[in-house]
Amino acid sequence: MIKDTDRTLDPNEVRFFSGSSHPQLASDIARYLGVELAETKTSRFSNDNLYIQLGASVRSRIVYILQSLTQPVNDNLVELLMMIDIARSASAKEVHAIIPYFSFARSDKKDAPRISITARLIADLLKTAGATHVMSMVLHSPQVHGFFSIPADPLSSRPVFSSYFSQKDLANAIIVAPDMGQAKSAAKFAKEMNLPVAAGNKERVSDTKVIINGVIGNSLKGLKRALIYDDEIATGGSVIELSRILIEEGIQDIWVACTHGVFVHDGLQKLVDIPQISEIVTTDTVYLPPEKQHPKLTTLSVAPVFGEAIKKNYFHESIGELFFYGS
Amino acid sequence: MIKDTDRTLDPNEVRFFSGSSHPQLASDIARYLGVELAETKTSRFSNDNLYIQLGASVRSRIVYILQSLTQPVNDNLVELLMMIDIARSASAKEVHAIIPYFSFARSDKKDAPRISITARLIADLLKTAGATHVMSMVLHSPQVHGFFSIPADPLSSRPVFSSYFSQKDLANAIIVAPDMGQAKSAAKFAKEMNLPVAAGNKERVSDTKVIINGVIGNSLKGLKRALIYDDEIATGGSVIELSRILIEEGIQDIWVACTHGVFVHDGLQKLVDIPQISEIVTTDTVYLPPEKQHPKLTTLSVAPVFGEAIKKNYFHESIGELFFYGS
Amino acid sequence: MIKDTDRTLDPNEVRFFSGSSHPQLASDIARYLGVELAETKTSRFSNDNLYIQLGASVRSRIVYILQSLTQPVNDNLVELLMMIDIARSASAKEVHAIIPYFSFARSDKKDAPRISITARLIADLLKTAGATHVMSMVLHSPQVHGFFSIPADPLSSRPVFSSYFSQKDLANAIIVAPDMGQAKSAAKFAKEMNLPVAAGNKERVSDTKVIINGVIGNSLKGLKRALIYDDEIATGGSVIELSRILIEEGIQDIWVACTHGVFVHDGLQKLVDIPQISEIVTTDTVYLPPEKQHPKLTTLSVAPVFGEAIKKNYFHESIGELFFYGS
Amino acid sequence: MIKDTDRTLDPNEVRFFSGSSHPQLASDIARYLGVELAETKTSRFSNDNLYIQLGASVRSRIVYILQSLTQPVNDNLVELLMMIDIARSASAKEVHAIIPYFSFARSDKKDAPRISITARLIADLLKTAGATHVMSMVLHSPQVHGFFSIPADPLSSRPVFSSYFSQKDLANAIIVAPDMGQAKSAAKFAKEMNLPVAAGNKERVSDTKVIINGVIGNSLKGLKRALIYDDEIATGGSVIELSRILIEEGIQDIWVACTHGVFVHDGLQKLVDIPQISEIVTTDTVYLPPEKQHPKLTTLSVAPVFGEAIKKNYFHESIGELFFYGS
Amino acid sequence: MIKDTDRTLDPNEVRFFSGSSHPQLASDIARYLGVELAETKTSRFSNDNLYIQLGASVRSRIVYILQSLTQPVNDNLVELLMMIDIARSASAKEVHAIIPYFSFARSDKKDAPRISITARLIADLLKTAGATHVMSMVLHSPQVHGFFSIPADPLSSRPVFSSYFSQKDLANAIIVAPDMGQAKSAAKFAKEMNLPVAAGNKERVSDTKVIINGVIGNSLKGLKRALIYDDEIATGGSVIELSRILIEEGIQDIWVACTHGVFVHDGLQKLVDIPQISEIVTTDTVYLPPEKQHPKLTTLSVAPVFGEAIKKNYFHESIGELFFYGS
Amino acid sequence: MIKDTDRTLDPNEVRFFSGSSHPQLASDIARYLGVELAETKTSRFSNDNLYIQLGASVRSRIVYILQSLTQPVNDNLVELLMMIDIARSASAKEVHAIIPYFSFARSDKKDAPRISITARLIADLLKTAGATHVMSMVLHSPQVHGFFSIPADPLSSRPVFSSYFSQKDLANAIIVAPDMGQAKSAAKFAKEMNLPVAAGNKERVSDTKVIINGVIGNSLKGLKRALIYDDEIATGGSVIELSRILIEEGIQDIWVACTHGVFVHDGLQKLVDIPQISEIVTTDTVYLPPEKQHPKLTTLSVAPVFGEAIKKNYFHESIGELFFYGS
Repeated sequence: MIKDTDRTLDPNEVRFFSGSSHPQLASDIARYLGVELAETKTSRFSNDNLYIQLGASVRSRIVYILQSLTQPVNDNLVELLMMIDIARSASAKEVHAIIPYFSFARSDKKDAPRISITARLIADLLKTAGATHVMSMVLHSPQVHGFFSIPADPLSSRPVFSSYFSQKDLANAIIVAPDMGQAKSAAKFAKEMNLPVAAGNKERVSDTKVIINGVIGNSLKGLKRALIYDDEIATGGSVIELSRILIEEGIQDIWVACTHGVFVHDGLQKLVDIPQISEIVTTDTVYLPPEKQHPKLTTLSVAPVFGEAIKKNYFHESIGELFFYGS
Repeated sequence: MIKDTDRTLDPNEVRFFSGSSHPQLASDIARYLGVELAETKTSRFSNDNLYIQLGASVRSRIVYILQSLTQPVNDNLVELLMMIDIARSASAKEVHAIIPYFSFARSDKKDAPRISITARLIADLLKTAGATHVMSMVLHSPQVHGFFSIPADPLSSRPVFSSYFSQKDLANAIIVAPDMGQAKSAAKFAKEMNLPVAAGNKERVSDTKVIINGVIGNSLKGLKRALIYDDEIATGGSVIELSRILIEEGIQDIWVACTHGVFVHDGLQKLVDIPQISEIVTTDTVYLPPEKQHPKLTTLSVAPVFGEAIKKNYFHESIGELFFYGS
Repeated sequence: MIKDTDRTLDPNEVRFFSGSSHPQLASDIARYLGVELAETKTSRFSNDNLYIQLGASVRSRIVYILQSLTQPVNDNLVELLMMIDIARSASAKEVHAIIPYFSFARSDKKDAPRISITARLIADLLKTAGATHVMSMVLHSPQVHGFFSIPADPLSSRPVFSSYFSQKDLANAIIVAPDMGQAKSAAKFAKEMNLPVAAGNKERVSDTKVIINGVIGNSLKGLKRALIYDDEIATGGSVIELSRILIEEGIQDIWVACTHGVFVHDGLQKLVDIPQISEIVTTDTVYLPPEKQHPKLTTLSVAPVFGEAIKKNYFHESIGELFFYGS
Repeated sequence: MIKDTDRTLDPNEVRFFSGSSHPQLASDIARYLGVELAETKTSRFSNDNLYIQLGASVRSRIVYILQSLTQPVNDNLVELLMMIDIARSASAKEVHAIIPYFSFARSDKKDAPRISITARLIADLLKTAGATHVMSMVLHSPQVHGFFSIPADPLSSRPVFSSYFSQKDLANAIIVAPDMGQAKSAAKFAKEMNLPVAAGNKERVSDTKVIINGVIGNSLKGLKRALIYDDEIATGGSVIELSRILIEEGIQDIWVACTHGVFVHDGLQKLVDIPQISEIVTTDTVYLPPEKQHPKLTTLSVAPVFGEAIKKNYFHESIGELFFYGS
Repeated sequence: MIKDTDRTLDPNEVRFFSGSSHPQLASDIARYLGVELAETKTSRFSNDNLYIQLGASVRSRIVYILQSLTQPVNDNLVELLMMIDIARSASAKEVHAIIPYFSFARSDKKDAPRISITARLIADLLKTAGATHVMSMVLHSPQVHGFFSIPADPLSSRPVFSSYFSQKDLANAIIVAPDMGQAKSAAKFAKEMNLPVAAGNKERVSDTKVIINGVIGNSLKGLKRALIYDDEIATGGSVIELSRILIEEGIQDIWVACTHGVFVHDGLQKLVDIPQISEIVTTDTVYLPPEKQHPKLTTLSVAPVFGEAIKKNYFHESIGELFFYGS
Repeated sequence: MIKDTDRTLDPNEVRFFSGSSHPQLASDIARYLGVELAETKTSRFSNDNLYIQLGASVRSRIVYILQSLTQPVNDNLVELLMMIDIARSASAKEVHAIIPYFSFARSDKKDAPRISITARLIADLLKTAGATHVMSMVLHSPQVHGFFSIPADPLSSRPVFSSYFSQKDLANAIIVAPDMGQAKSAAKFAKEMNLPVAAGNKERVSDTKVIINGVIGNSLKGLKRALIYDDEIATGGSVIELSRILIEEGIQDIWVACTHGVFVHDGLQKLVDIPQISEIVTTDTVYLPPEKQHPKLTTLSVAPVFGEAIKKNYFHESIGELFFYGS
């Protein structure tokens, strides 16, 4: 991974704010950039309306606002829209919305009558509020990029994972995507790690229930170790199903890697309960409260990726190597 | 109050949907219009995103969506925006957002640095989502009307209250506004009821704390009964303060009338605990769950007002007499 | 398939025009609707600029313009934009762009730096020119729907194929998608036809070259007949590759079905030269000139699908059953 | 008051133009900024259309255009819109409309059927013409700020008045607002001056006629001197009414302070004819021709306030202390 | 000329309002349409701002607003923008601006640095205010049509003139355009009247001063009578110059025809003082006050042209024969 | 002509790309600016869609894209729109479309029913794609400038021609415009060259056929040499007609000068076949392939004009002296 510690942003030209969803990540990115995290005061009126005040002048400045669209997602969304609106109307020169987990990306098509392609709606709302640029990471489908009418930069988390796993013993290992949708992304990762790749043959029954009947691609024969590579884990259903199959096929050690560790209900618990799963590696695009920490769980920070991308954008350089070209 | 029971809307041309905030009011208005309330299916993905499906075809139809922006306000707002988006993108001919309580109207100015004029932001978001018209009731300040760039009709609740109180014994009564901001509105109501009017001299200390030092306007001398007339009661602080003053001045019986009964914390309880307050009259712009019901509390329905305004709009008639000209 | 021959559109309220790409289909749809195809005069100035004149008054009328974005694609696109512009500026009430083959849908993501998500750009240009609604068929990916900021209705071609193949002997047959991207769509078709389904494990090497290494899904064992089901065939590379695999696996008779028969270079010839391919079934979303006709090639008309969808839209009815929900 | 005489704007980057309404103020502000006032040539075609030419290149420059929307208000408005349009279309980088008196702010609500919320309309027209930022002073109601969809900075005139009156003998004095609408603003001023405050109990009969029946707030008992504090004086009706009341209550010396000295008809004359009014203090947001000068009339310049705000904006600093937070 | 007296507009669906510039023409058009002219109340606040109230409900109705952009042009423009804004925000279904004399059309290009293409600016302002359609007559250059981004219909005055002059003795007559800019238009008129045509060789020295040195086109030899055909006469300079040349060439009787009779300063007087000018024929696109009437001046009404165009638009018919195709 | 060879643009801040229409001119302008021409990779998908990749990072940079809208005009247009879209969505700071020959300018009015004012449509499409500024040269009519809603700079080619012809023997010469539309422009050129001027009396029969019956303006008597001065030559019909007339009137030597040398069909051949035409001088706004070169044809480069205008724009200077004020 590229690291650039020599250059910092001009603190007189830049303001970095954090929404309520993930102050830790905001603080880490700000530190990477060499600027301070400015204060955001958020409270509620008695009628439940948010009251937000940005704690530093933004006039003619380049403003970054970090907000991950995690649970409670609507509160976080409206907070973000209001923060953008404040910056814009207080004469900020640029307003960059940094959205590590753009959860709405999953609502990207109309597969039933009279539903909303919500990802497009939210892209439009961000523009209306006054965002001039959006940065995100690992969109559920690469087409979501096209929903934005302002410049948008989806970033890849692959550098974070390749950097981490390249220090492991990868002999006899295979990368496995839980379904064909993630197969392309897993293949790219496998190529970089010089490993074989396979994919689960998944069928989604409902939002929380899936069936996987077999694995396609490279053969698992003689392999002992699998690295399940996914974009997002919520209930963990797919990974559990896939692990069952892999174990049946003779895999003895499983690593799980996913960019967005949403981990709802008892999803994480179910995963760590599988003895063959020795480690779950996720990133901090989604804030993980202390009660969700677990010895088997490793969290890699995406702060250097966002930090580097912001820095390159600030210094007018290509961010191509950090970009999410569908993976 | 005008009532029109002869004409109904053409059910083949019209669709009426309700958000989660207040299905009862939606149902009452739909009945007034002579149309059925169409189904709205709302659930959550495991990543907390809303999933909404409108339950009836809207193609080339006139669509009404009722949502009161009450607690949980951000959930209700995002739900409303998504419903509007669904209707618009499914080729609805017109999309009317019916918002009985537009709570954001209170954020109507910048009285501190770097805050949001949120009412304007929300007005813009509604347009972006695809609303072609907005109906609301008793906006906190009449200027909020100017925040909308699509046609907007704020309605008055006065007909509802005048119809109710005109059946009471109003001898020796006076209308009292809790502060000067509501004085104009109270005066108009007093004139219609043929009663004197006064106003509390209020100073707001914080969102939840106010001081009232005296009453101005018509003298309370010799009067026994006061009707406190307000737009919105949340914690009830102002009304409690004002009641204390009125009682000191010799008032023995107090009625409280307010359009938007938000009633948070133990606001309602504190009011009913004051012995001189014999009745609190509010409307159903805000949904009142069973646990907030109380023998001293009367709820008047605004369904006929919204119903009549929608009907007049549908039949191309002036809604002037239902309009909120600052009161 | 639904057929509605009783109702016709009001010829005084409607105008139907055709661009240069496919007058035959335009004429067939117009006939289905019971209206005449109005004239479009197209010529070129000596500086190569198009000169277009619509041949019938559009004032306050509902205007339909049919144009398939086939080769020469830029000429057809600019012609379409100009026709829309003429209708809009001559006070048409509605301007519907009917685009059977929206070829730009393939440029739906940024999988390399500094390329264009052209499908989004074209969606925006159509709106700028004045289109108020778009109808298309079988978009390359369902997310492309979200690129439109005006109401858009992608239609399905499945009813056309199921109606045709249900009259064939389907014993021992299997539906095969050439790759995982089309697997969902093939599965839906298979379910409707009550047949098993499989998919080629395809890897794209370049725009014109692909490799398929095996078939996944239901086993081909014991089956004699395969129906390759694809959205679009240009050079035919995938189908040829897949046929080779299928023949190796024991399939003796192959039908090929594809919505958009682009057939460039000698693609069609290569297909018909494979003895096991007994029939290629496509639709008329792309105009097929006489020199491309072949005894093995069957062309089904989508005119009834577009006609019916337009009719339902005109009469304010749901078009749900004709809709492309990803297939 | 803050004064910054050390820094000046870069004359190569900035252009300052004046409309016809108030060249003197434009010239004073330009001098404060250290730049020259560029020429504006204005004439009329024989068909009464304005012909305007800006006298200096604006390409890629930051352009300021000063125009007070005073009588003849429509001529001044159209002149301003044309100047903005010229700057924008000649590739100015930023176009700042400096509007000391935004007279349309009074038309901020719909208190009768089928009237215009003109302040919103004008805000939209300014944006359409190409303004990227607006600066104004003391808007009639603070909500008008929300009518602008481009960044807007309403400034306060309070620093000007507090600086002036702090040099006077304020013993036994009280600040009096003519009505409750101005009470908040007066209270803020009183707090800064460490004086008591009261407000007239005004009722508006028509645009030119008002009744005041008493004063509320701090008692006048024992006080000899009152400072009437208002935002705008046109016919002077309110101030005359209020003065009558104050004199009845024992006030012997009256100062009148108002930001916008519109002074129409014989308004100024009537004020100076009241013997107890010893001084009328206004600002130069509205140009005061020589024939309106009077020994009792003092005009304070707002040039340093606008100059300082422009300077801070130019140097990316907060203008919070000059901002009009409702006063 | 086409006349249609049988059909009238539905008075329940239509509202016709007039601005201050030309109530007589508005009234004549309304009568042609069979609807009443609704009231418009216009007054001024003491700060010179317009206060306008439309006198009839416009909800969901088709609204026509007539305003000629004549002197005082800025007052008339702002009045028109406000009337449009009122109609739009009060939920009118369509808002048609009927502008018989669009005076700004003369500012149609940038022939000097840093001037405004004002005609384009005004077209944009009309759209921002809420106009959905514009009708005008004889634009100074046909390209101005392209400045509008809403549908616009420039109408021709030729039918009015040809109907009038066809009743005259046209033996030995020639049509003469004052300059080459009007030559095309004059030629079209001449063709319709079956007369020869010529044009003055004009050079414009300033807005009010021109030189004509000769006549080109058909020879004047042996002709006695000339019909000078122009779009607009203000000071009359061109016509006076041209008359001088014509008289020198032997013409003994001159008729002057112009669509827009602006007649400023003593322009009309100078024309009637030329003995060879026997008649000046203009239309009522510009209101002619009694003091400008003269025995030599004939005013033809364009009410039937506007009335017929509005009627055809209302009944969804082509207005091609009334259209201004550059003449 | 101004030449500025000392200053160059900062290559780190600027990117210059060329479309397919005219790489040579792009390269020449880039060299003038002192920057390199970045690569543009263009190919076609098998469905005829363009695939374009810009070959250098544009993030936060000032991007110039050169494309002349010459034959094949629709391909060149769509290529330009895509290149602009790529630059905009990849976060370019400014996107300047440099369009030496804006061929659509000829479609600038509606002189027949239901045709397109295509020049306005294209201006809108360029904005939608993301252009922030347009530079062009010698628009067919100066009003076309008003079609752009982004800043646009039409440049003049006069400096190029005056610089060239001032080195010739101009004794006994006259400038002749082929028609009145070009007369103004020719007069300006004649004034600069200190020569007399005349104009052909042209009547257009069709897009490719014209009649000229005589010459108006200065007399040709005694003159031997004529310089025909036109904006654009396609078939050459006008020039051939005019030459015939001039030769009849005694002119013995003809030079032809035109900005845009479109030269279609055998237009150029017909011109060079006329013995009296000794030289045809055009510019390189339109690419001239080798097979169109001819000894009688001289091509002057406009690269210095565009280069200088871009440079002045970059350095915030007026480009007034290069501007096309109708000529």
